[in-house]
Amino acid sequence: MNKAIFYHAGCPVCLSAEQQVIDAIDKNRYEIEIVHLGEDKAQIRVAEQAGVKSVPALLLDGDIFHINFGAALDDVKVLRYL
Amino acid sequence: MNKAIFYHAGCPVCLSAEQQVIDAIDKNRYEIEIVHLGEDKAQIRVAEQAGVKSVPALLLDGDIFHINFGAALDDVKVLRYL
Repeated sequence: MNKAIFYHAGCPVCLSAEQQVIDAIDKNRYEIEIVHLGEDKAQIRVAEQAGVKSVPALLLDGDIFHINFGAALDDVKVLRYL
Repeated sequence: MNKAIFYHAGCPVCLSAEQQVIDAIDKNRYEIEIVHLGEDKAQIRVAEQAGVKSVPALLLDGDIFHINFGAALDDVKVLRYL
């Protein structure tokens, strides 16, 4: 099974984009994980090591694809959720 | 059938990225078209009207997703292929 991980930081525009991209992926061949970096700060380092520079980003079998531009990972690190 | 169009301008890095993204899309639900804007200049205006600002870009049912950044569409317009 291939692995797809979608990294985002929770903004509505990114969530909408994410929904469409995830929807298009072949679920018979890809196991899909969605990671909200705003809620799961521990994953930020993992994402960074995988090559994520900004969100939303899609990791396909270890290769990173930055989709549009929501926020830089550096900004997500210091983001406060009210 | 949903429609996915992948716009690119032919650089090897973009082609590699394209291959992985196209590979991940569910072919049972998406009809896929790949458009090389360097070879098919007439499509540049079509891409522009669809919202393409840079390549590579993926159009999913009319919504545009810019994936990474290869080249701005304005630069593709004046590109010369030797």
